[in-house]
Amino acid sequence: MTGHDIGNLFANIPHDLSQEASEDILRSDGLRIERIVSKGHTSPDEGWYDQDEHEWVLVLRGGGRIAFDDGSEVELGVGDHLHIPAHRRHRVSWTDPSQPTLWLAVFHR
Amino acid sequence: MTGHDIGNLFANIPHDLSQEASEDILRSDGLRIERIVSKGHTSPDEGWYDQDEHEWVLVLRGGGRIAFDDGSEVELGVGDHLHIPAHRRHRVSWTDPSQPTLWLAVFHR
Repeated sequence: MTGHDIGNLFANIPHDLSQEASEDILRSDGLRIERIVSKGHTSPDEGWYDQDEHEWVLVLRGGGRIAFDDGSEVELGVGDHLHIPAHRRHRVSWTDPSQPTLWLAVFHR
Repeated sequence: MTGHDIGNLFANIPHDLSQEASEDILRSDGLRIERIVSKGHTSPDEGWYDQDEHEWVLVLRGGGRIAFDDGSEVELGVGDHLHIPAHRRHRVSWTDPSQPTLWLAVFHR
């Protein structure tokens, strides 16, 4: 081995997806990269995400929808990416129930 | 339309890949996300990348190899990701000549 720490975003998908699974890929000053695996999950009905950080999100597999508090909604498929500024209230309104949806989320200041 | 700016990382692959093609996806304070498309390209023989920024890199399609100045080399396929600290001298020693290789690179301070 070379001592380089390689991971694979499509590996180690949790078998139990009764809950959404998120995992830190990288944490650094003002930056956090997460892999999130959903399967039919949505945000809690009562809650909006209202984040102090900006979020750039990319769908790597599957698909989902993100709703915003102005009533708009976007559908994201494989390869689609979106930037969500800090404090832009949003929620996950749908994810594909038939397969795991893999999100890559880059949170930054 | 919703006013949300969605892009797709698999769309608009340049037809002319006689040169490597890189494109800014996001630029923010201390953060730059780039899509790079290679097809058989390697870094110039004479040069190492010696970057002021850290780089987290992910292969979205295709495959490539990155060599380091300690003589080590890693091969990255689809979904593989690697973090390259600032000033870790490296070069792209091989990319798949048979298909475009898509890299997502997150440069950060």
